[in-house]
Amino acid sequence: MIDQKGSLFIVSAPSGAGKTTLLREVRSRLPDVKFSVSFTTRPPRPGEEDGKDYFFISEEEFLKGIRENRFAEWARVHGNYYGTDRHMIESWIAGGQDVILDIDVQGARELKCQYPQSVAIFILPPSWGELERRLRLRGTDTEDVIEKRLRNAARELEEAFWYDYLVVNDEIPKATDQLVAIITSSRCRTNRQFWLLKSFLANFTG
Amino acid sequence: MIDQKGSLFIVSAPSGAGKTTLLREVRSRLPDVKFSVSFTTRPPRPGEEDGKDYFFISEEEFLKGIRENRFAEWARVHGNYYGTDRHMIESWIAGGQDVILDIDVQGARELKCQYPQSVAIFILPPSWGELERRLRLRGTDTEDVIEKRLRNAARELEEAFWYDYLVVNDEIPKATDQLVAIITSSRCRTNRQFWLLKSFLANFTG
Repeated sequence: MIDQKGSLFIVSAPSGAGKTTLLREVRSRLPDVKFSVSFTTRPPRPGEEDGKDYFFISEEEFLKGIRENRFAEWARVHGNYYGTDRHMIESWIAGGQDVILDIDVQGARELKCQYPQSVAIFILPPSWGELERRLRLRGTDTEDVIEKRLRNAARELEEAFWYDYLVVNDEIPKATDQLVAIITSSRCRTNRQFWLLKSFLANFTG
Repeated sequence: MIDQKGSLFIVSAPSGAGKTTLLREVRSRLPDVKFSVSFTTRPPRPGEEDGKDYFFISEEEFLKGIRENRFAEWARVHGNYYGTDRHMIESWIAGGQDVILDIDVQGARELKCQYPQSVAIFILPPSWGELERRLRLRGTDTEDVIEKRLRNAARELEEAFWYDYLVVNDEIPKATDQLVAIITSSRCRTNRQFWLLKSFLANFTG
């Protein structure tokens, strides 16, 4: 049944918009959705698990993967490589499973070009003031870093125009409902259920 | 703000699929959604209210409406006219409100051509056997009428292919969730929120 496939959901957000929290909520509401795990050459940090946080591989293996077109997107950040395994995503989708891919705007753009049927979702903070407040609340960044994050956020927001959906993370339960609604409604799309119509009409005995 | 508009949701279903019950549930979950009320020349039945069940108008007034292109769609059934007032729908949508229009497949097709941005939803019974069981349960129809309804359902299902979404009414809470998700997600579409991105970027002071 070629048309009973899953969908790919690409989710991006500026730092501080609350993406991690929201995706955790979505995961508990929709436990059957798969979350893509990136491959990286950076060493694991304390507490990180191979296959859960990242797949940790050697630079040699990563470069071989690039040559073999294994990655649907990849990037080099601070000397480390990060990439998304094409086969992993495609086999889940072909098996009828929905996949969420948490990625920055550059990676999202590349994925959208390769998977035009994917659903791209951008998570927004409710306002600049609130984004700044949330970044300060973390208490981990210096003033310089906070200002850099805000400028990055402005750049990322300029990319938000081509995303299919915008979700404003004002209240977590409401934003979670919206993310769940986007996934639920996409499962109801006729082009994901032609097989159902076909079998329905085939079974009519009147 | 021209782009902060509502959406039109066109909902069709074969008789016995449970559309009336589902739309009542949706109405209680999303009280801000407007329900389109048709105009008709048929006399009100006991208990029917003008402006709630239908707008009851004279045949003369209806024919004048047709000549003046007042109806986005209209039909003559058993000698009575039924139609949807174009102005009513368009003014709600222009005012940013979502509108649900409960209509048969012929009317839905006409509306979809005139409002290509509308969202068309087809409600399916879980199976032919279940549809037949529900029609019999009503206890109001003769065997002939039930068979006619089933043949009509088969004809209507052939039109379901061009609808944007299919919702299988297996369990009412689940099907209601899906309808609510389709409306909620459509509110999150970027093309309904460009104004938000624009104002967000305009307010950046970093």
